[in-house]
Amino acid sequence: MKIENKKDEELEKARHSLAHVLAKAVMSIYPEAKLTIGPAIEDGFYYDIDLAHSITQDEYAAIENKMKEIINKGESFTRKVVSKEEALKLFAGNVYKTEIINELPKGEEVSLYYTGDDFFDLCRGPHVESTRNLQNYGYKIHSVNGAYWRGNEKNKMLQRIYAYAFKTKKDLSEYIAKMEDARKRDHNKLGRELELFTTVDYVGQGLPILLPRGARIIQILQRFVEDEEEKRGWLLTKTPFMAKSDLYKISGHWDHYKDGMFVLGDEEKDKEVFALRPMTCPFQYQAYLNKARSYKDLPLRYNETSTLFRNEASGEMHGLIRVRQFTISEGHLICTPEQMEEEFKKCLELAIYMLKTLGLYEDASYRFSQWDPNNRAKYEGTTEQWEKAQASMQKILDHLEVPYEIGIGEAAFYGPKLDIQIKNVFGKEDTLITIQIDQMLAQKFGMEYTDKDGEKKTPYIIHRTSIGCYERTLAYLIEKYAGAFPLWLAPEQVRVLTLTERSNDYAEKITAILKEHGLRVECDNRNEKIGYKIREAMSMKLPYLIIVGDEEEKTATISIRGRGFENKSGLRLDDFIARLDEEIRTKKI
Amino acid sequence: MKIENKKDEELEKARHSLAHVLAKAVMSIYPEAKLTIGPAIEDGFYYDIDLAHSITQDEYAAIENKMKEIINKGESFTRKVVSKEEALKLFAGNVYKTEIINELPKGEEVSLYYTGDDFFDLCRGPHVESTRNLQNYGYKIHSVNGAYWRGNEKNKMLQRIYAYAFKTKKDLSEYIAKMEDARKRDHNKLGRELELFTTVDYVGQGLPILLPRGARIIQILQRFVEDEEEKRGWLLTKTPFMAKSDLYKISGHWDHYKDGMFVLGDEEKDKEVFALRPMTCPFQYQAYLNKARSYKDLPLRYNETSTLFRNEASGEMHGLIRVRQFTISEGHLICTPEQMEEEFKKCLELAIYMLKTLGLYEDASYRFSQWDPNNRAKYEGTTEQWEKAQASMQKILDHLEVPYEIGIGEAAFYGPKLDIQIKNVFGKEDTLITIQIDQMLAQKFGMEYTDKDGEKKTPYIIHRTSIGCYERTLAYLIEKYAGAFPLWLAPEQVRVLTLTERSNDYAEKITAILKEHGLRVECDNRNEKIGYKIREAMSMKLPYLIIVGDEEEKTATISIRGRGFENKSGLRLDDFIARLDEEIRTKKI
Repeated sequence: MKIENKKDEELEKARHSLAHVLAKAVMSIYPEAKLTIGPAIEDGFYYDIDLAHSITQDEYAAIENKMKEIINKGESFTRKVVSKEEALKLFAGNVYKTEIINELPKGEEVSLYYTGDDFFDLCRGPHVESTRNLQNYGYKIHSVNGAYWRGNEKNKMLQRIYAYAFKTKKDLSEYIAKMEDARKRDHNKLGRELELFTTVDYVGQGLPILLPRGARIIQILQRFVEDEEEKRGWLLTKTPFMAKSDLYKISGHWDHYKDGMFVLGDEEKDKEVFALRPMTCPFQYQAYLNKARSYKDLPLRYNETSTLFRNEASGEMHGLIRVRQFTISEGHLICTPEQMEEEFKKCLELAIYMLKTLGLYEDASYRFSQWDPNNRAKYEGTTEQWEKAQASMQKILDHLEVPYEIGIGEAAFYGPKLDIQIKNVFGKEDTLITIQIDQMLAQKFGMEYTDKDGEKKTPYIIHRTSIGCYERTLAYLIEKYAGAFPLWLAPEQVRVLTLTERSNDYAEKITAILKEHGLRVECDNRNEKIGYKIREAMSMKLPYLIIVGDEEEKTATISIRGRGFENKSGLRLDDFIARLDEEIRTKKI
Repeated sequence: MKIENKKDEELEKARHSLAHVLAKAVMSIYPEAKLTIGPAIEDGFYYDIDLAHSITQDEYAAIENKMKEIINKGESFTRKVVSKEEALKLFAGNVYKTEIINELPKGEEVSLYYTGDDFFDLCRGPHVESTRNLQNYGYKIHSVNGAYWRGNEKNKMLQRIYAYAFKTKKDLSEYIAKMEDARKRDHNKLGRELELFTTVDYVGQGLPILLPRGARIIQILQRFVEDEEEKRGWLLTKTPFMAKSDLYKISGHWDHYKDGMFVLGDEEKDKEVFALRPMTCPFQYQAYLNKARSYKDLPLRYNETSTLFRNEASGEMHGLIRVRQFTISEGHLICTPEQMEEEFKKCLELAIYMLKTLGLYEDASYRFSQWDPNNRAKYEGTTEQWEKAQASMQKILDHLEVPYEIGIGEAAFYGPKLDIQIKNVFGKEDTLITIQIDQMLAQKFGMEYTDKDGEKKTPYIIHRTSIGCYERTLAYLIEKYAGAFPLWLAPEQVRVLTLTERSNDYAEKITAILKEHGLRVECDNRNEKIGYKIREAMSMKLPYLIIVGDEEEKTATISIRGRGFENKSGLRLDDFIARLDEEIRTKKI
């Protein structure tokens, strides 16, 4: 069923009012500054100012103190309406405000807001009545970044002053603590520290290099997904990562998606032009098209561990989350109209099973991404086709009691989507999993089946992923577990540490037994202090450390340390292996 | 040790003589034909002629009969030397011969060969003394194809008459039988019939689509290779398939290999130019470069299931053997000079283990690919570096008693190679596996380690693959086994067939048990005659068929049929599963 995302209007009004207070404070300290715009945002507000002097961190306190002074004075926010001409006079020295005012329709009135008698700003409002209403609020300037005027790199670079703002000082300090934790979990930082991935300038942005520890996790995930899908009746394909432009012209990607694709060659000059694929759909359909199909063959479920390429702008790249090349657990299910709901349900169940197994289910929300009838050029097909497909999808979602928000204009060009959204540690939301309904591409490629009545019919296609992109999933797992992965996913599950060199043989024997058993284990028999070796292992967030010295060797036992349990001594290796086996078998999180 | 590939000079002379006999026969039947050239080739000879009339298959016998007549006459081959001027007069009506004669150095004498008194051809010889010497030979025209004069598509298209030729009629018929068998095994035909792969014109040449059966085999092979490599101490990486041109400029690929690469963007116009990778080397080195290394860390063995792209010419494509995109079991091992021989040996042992497991070992031969000192532009580095690297490799190969041929000019641009060669069913040889030695790329990328003496040193790199390209390996496996894959590789291991619909439940129960056990099994319970269902299953070369009817259900047994064993009835399912488990565990071939 449809759900609404409620905004806290009071908080938003207060944040925006605080932005005015900040602006007034800034102007009193730096009178030469030019104000531009200062909106409320998800965790506070910002204000962009044009100022030759660069504001540094040690100046934040002075601005905050000035803000406090203004708030404590209890200055009232009062609205004043003036004509465009008057407004232009009032803001004569400010090119930014002048530009905004000039863009207003002719004859429109302009609204100003005063804070006290001595400061006003161009603003639609609304605002709180008095700065006194802001007294309980917690706010804090946390950074000043460069930002182009109106986000256009051809314009002047301004200074954007960011501040957190919450209803109480307690909310603020909780949020700051959360952000500090988030910075520690940030996959783009932690993933490098744990030697999971790296990036290299001369290789390129958005092209991460998965180091052995990261590559191992992705290998484990891929095998898990492929095996689970095989059990559920999916047929693996392996299709090429590029094709001639001819293919994309049939599918519509050439018309609707070319800017996001890497194109090889030049249509004006070359006989054949190729492009790297941004999606797997038209490739995997070739498996269906390989022979004539009857209703008896359906549903046909094709899965693929598929690499895709998207020509993202350089500024968009982020760690493992937004990249130019990624590998996805892709799949296309071809079925009759009668089979659609049941198969859609199974696809959703598989995705939920994956999210639950990985421990990400609690963080997910649903989005029903629809077309935008006012922007038809973005989409293939007729209004009837879209309305039919969306009605059909809504019926299924409501029947399955999926709680979704609606996203207008977020559909694929060929059909509506159910997106499973997830937020990173900083609260930024991205799509992890998507399930789509489509009949248009089936038509374009002449996909058919012979029905019971002997008629040739166009099947439905469900486009879906069961775990999303492996790189992105790895990023969320790093952040979720702060790098302390569940045992079944840990690239190094056990490290054997020696107390002294006397125990090297015993340690190597234990290492060999664990390896033979299929565990991922390393042996640290360096001639270093045990405290140093333990700290190093703990900093890599390893699940289990085995420590062996004379005592352990004498009694043929092991001592263990690790995450989330008491240190233990005198354990039998067999018992330890049984404990790990169970933890791995159940994919304990 | 070095081995020589001996040519059978007598056979070659006879084949070339037969080409003259063919030419004489052709001229007597088609006097308007113009002769060009007619060399001996691996299984016979051909002659290219210019003739307006297209020779069809039903004309082959007339030409062969005429040849027989000439041979039975015992005409002698006699050499005559003339001046260039005389030769030009003799061949005045033939533009091809005229072109050849004109290219000879000024003043050089021209040699002709007569066959009898009434036919001569421009030729260096040697030939047999008399056509009588050819009487025991078996020869047969097998095809006439189009071929451009001198292989240049700007020239006129000629007719190339191909004939087999062997020392005896028996050799010939054995060879023809072998070719017929080869055509049945041809992966490019059989692989499609068995639904392993397909190609689609609008996707593009050299971009095969692996259908579920083919993709399954590759998945099994990849997991087998990755697991075996992990056991042997290799560390998996997963690096991007493209990079900025900057990377290839450092590695030297931009200078030496750009024509074979797919380039994205235009250096003149775009800020960033990317290229798809033709090799993994410079990508995988980034894992090594991720932190400082000491001699204690070495050897470091990095493996990757790596996709590569090569911009091959359209005419070069062949099924799964020559393609534009392929996936290879790639690896780079970084070691000290002292570790080189031992590690090289281990790489070779791994490759041999793979070949033996797949049953391809008997078909392989070795090639020591060296640089060409007369074509220095193709290679990086100094003569000293090449001599040192080649001497070092030769020492290792001789020490390991590898029997190799030498290939001058076949080295990589950065170092010498050991190539493991394999022939396809038609006798065409390709490289399946390669092991290379290199220090030049390590230098270019500033790869270093701190040695025992505290000095920074450049390590050696062994580039290697352990199973080669998966697509190519699959092609050889299809041809080797004529599609009847060993059980552990078979995409469908068992098919359960019902005698009548009464046994459907029993068949499905058996199918479920086998699936639960991890076997790849399908159930054919269609209401069709059992003979039809068996034939269909046999045509897919399935290892095992289980047939169940009333009798089997009553006695709780199964009947089995399949490849290479007697039909059996009254088997217990448990015993059958145990038999399969053993066959899979031992990877029986």
